[in-house]
Amino acid sequence: MKVHLKNARILNPGQEFSESLGEVVTEGGVIRYVGPAAPRELTAGGRTLDLQGNLLMPGLVNAHAHSAMTLFRGLGGDLPLERWLYDRIFPLEDKLTPEDVYAGTLLACLEYLSSGITSVGDMYFFPEALFQAYDEAGLRVKYVMACSDPDGDTDREFRNLEERYAAFKDKTPLFSCLLGAHAEYTCSEALLTGIADFAVLHREPTYIHLSETLKEVGDCTVRHSGLTPPQYLHKLGFFEHGGTAAHVVHADKDDLDLLKQCGVNVAHNPSSNLKLGSGIAPVYAMLDRGLCVALGTDGAASNDRLDLFREMYLMAVLQKGAMYDAGAVTAEEAVRAATVQGARALYLEKVGKVEEGWAADLIVVDLDRPHWKPLNDLPAELVYAAKSSDVILTMVGGEILYENGAFPRLDPQKIFDRCQKSINRLRG
Amino acid sequence: MKVHLKNARILNPGQEFSESLGEVVTEGGVIRYVGPAAPRELTAGGRTLDLQGNLLMPGLVNAHAHSAMTLFRGLGGDLPLERWLYDRIFPLEDKLTPEDVYAGTLLACLEYLSSGITSVGDMYFFPEALFQAYDEAGLRVKYVMACSDPDGDTDREFRNLEERYAAFKDKTPLFSCLLGAHAEYTCSEALLTGIADFAVLHREPTYIHLSETLKEVGDCTVRHSGLTPPQYLHKLGFFEHGGTAAHVVHADKDDLDLLKQCGVNVAHNPSSNLKLGSGIAPVYAMLDRGLCVALGTDGAASNDRLDLFREMYLMAVLQKGAMYDAGAVTAEEAVRAATVQGARALYLEKVGKVEEGWAADLIVVDLDRPHWKPLNDLPAELVYAAKSSDVILTMVGGEILYENGAFPRLDPQKIFDRCQKSINRLRG
Repeated sequence: MKVHLKNARILNPGQEFSESLGEVVTEGGVIRYVGPAAPRELTAGGRTLDLQGNLLMPGLVNAHAHSAMTLFRGLGGDLPLERWLYDRIFPLEDKLTPEDVYAGTLLACLEYLSSGITSVGDMYFFPEALFQAYDEAGLRVKYVMACSDPDGDTDREFRNLEERYAAFKDKTPLFSCLLGAHAEYTCSEALLTGIADFAVLHREPTYIHLSETLKEVGDCTVRHSGLTPPQYLHKLGFFEHGGTAAHVVHADKDDLDLLKQCGVNVAHNPSSNLKLGSGIAPVYAMLDRGLCVALGTDGAASNDRLDLFREMYLMAVLQKGAMYDAGAVTAEEAVRAATVQGARALYLEKVGKVEEGWAADLIVVDLDRPHWKPLNDLPAELVYAAKSSDVILTMVGGEILYENGAFPRLDPQKIFDRCQKSINRLRG
Repeated sequence: MKVHLKNARILNPGQEFSESLGEVVTEGGVIRYVGPAAPRELTAGGRTLDLQGNLLMPGLVNAHAHSAMTLFRGLGGDLPLERWLYDRIFPLEDKLTPEDVYAGTLLACLEYLSSGITSVGDMYFFPEALFQAYDEAGLRVKYVMACSDPDGDTDREFRNLEERYAAFKDKTPLFSCLLGAHAEYTCSEALLTGIADFAVLHREPTYIHLSETLKEVGDCTVRHSGLTPPQYLHKLGFFEHGGTAAHVVHADKDDLDLLKQCGVNVAHNPSSNLKLGSGIAPVYAMLDRGLCVALGTDGAASNDRLDLFREMYLMAVLQKGAMYDAGAVTAEEAVRAATVQGARALYLEKVGKVEEGWAADLIVVDLDRPHWKPLNDLPAELVYAAKSSDVILTMVGGEILYENGAFPRLDPQKIFDRCQKSINRLRG
């Protein structure tokens, strides 16, 4: 399927924005042409869409998600992370079935596609159910393993690790996996060391929740002779081939230097960190060290909207407010975090830019709405004024999965009903 | 015009939320009936709207705005308040004409109505132009005077004060005014004292920007023998009949106690305070003292979206994040701030609740969207998950001013064009 997008304002992260209109042609899942006017031989036989001056940009990359937690949206509000997790979320998760995860993940896909998210790093139970949902919905996905052995059954986790790595490493062109652990506080040292060894053996990066709360950091230093979570994981060789750390709210200069030295990317989740009372991550200090900062929504039970437009906005404005410095993080840095840096954090190759040979993961944003007028500075207005509901088209690998409110592959009402049935049973 | 709204989930700030469906009848600008099923004689001859289980709630009250600054949207991003104001905004404002203010205010009205804002406290130049725009658009408005005499012409400001008070005190049932000054740092002591005396004479509250930045507070204490802005204004008798202070980001316990003692309400503007690097206001401490906290968007040049859904969300989550306390401010407190407390801060009577005899300022929010599913906790999801684009109907004084994307009174394209012409001239 060939698609010819014309009369587009094209925003390419990391490049100077130009107001002049351009064209893009996609074919075979990738971008074949970007420029002022596509040659006739490239566009022949394809579908042509006149974007009428609207914004064309890379699809957004959700670098940290627990998608099926859409089922728990609105639950446990106004509770801190530990009570929220142990009193509200874990008891519900204990009863989850693959059918629940399938339904909740499809619901997340409706949110993702209608708000411009094209790639997801999803850490949750029942990877087969995840795969089934994403394969139906058509998104680009890294399934992130979340090994943990709070019950002491470390061997089960090693078996899972090996089996899932074999099953999902290169499952499809759109679905692959990343090695990972849930968190320092839910994993034994034997498990973390085993994952580290496995990662070294396969020359793979690793992914983990890291330094999310003050309590996590304090408990870790007590358990491990004063070592912070990054120091402790480094001691175990966990990040030998780099990786990605989600959250990193409570990290000092030494922690950040260590993460940089280990080639670890950060998946920043500003709205989840605020809602759970975890704090505001030191994003300015991360960027200042050259760390790759990506953005994630986390799960809907702590957010409660899976919306990277909100995360972009928060990444930019929270640092300004927290540092009393209106220049602390710029709009352009937030756009990079939500696109090309997200792809880097998920180890997705050639994703997150509007360039020839890169993945045809693209979105169209409608600029003809009151909150975009007048159009004085498009990149600034994208971060500070845009709404995720301005997205009118979402394409993954060259296939249009959302267009003007319609989902060609999905039936929203059927998914809503399945999810309602699941949460009724779980809470019943 | 009589309107009968049925099959509604009704949310009334300050009351326990019930999932059972109800009905509302509006007539003559006010709510005539709220309950399970309206009697036939009340609904006869009116328009009936089946809300199909969607949310019906009070319209949102924007307690602090400079609406015509929509013209400057996206300009001066990533600059601190003082540089933003003196280098970017004031030079443009020097060239403003009534036609610019009229156009920019109409553009704001499009944003307000399509995102559920029904009342506005608007502090800006050319009140006749403001009045003309709002009168056309149909919103409920307090025009807030912003006296200032940085050029030393105090007499002009006194003349304006008297003339505008006479002209706008009870202009129409929807349009009236509040006495006020721009800020301590733009007013002479003679002017502030004169406004205070005028307010005492007419037994009126007063409105002012207060303690927005650390610099403002520091400069004030230097100029006025160690007095903070609230202390200094109190000394001048400025809040003799109460009033409303916008921002109040940098206030200590004594300042807050003083504001409470003077009956001063706070118009909290979280997104503007973040974007300009001003900081995070001590909202928890305000609520803890029983201060009335309302919400404002401020102007689009520092926000850049006039969206009280965003302000509600930020009010709730910023306190959680800043205080490391997920229970610091609840969803319900944010909803109250955006509705009935906003009306209190603007001295609008019987506005902000769904109750018989109260103003028929109502909005309908579409719940049939992915980010609302499943509907586990409606008030929580309203604050943490809803988007302002979920608003599908906005009514002021019983008149429907926005419905499913259409503005019966306004022509969006004409307004966009007028605004583009204005900003082209101002920047040219």
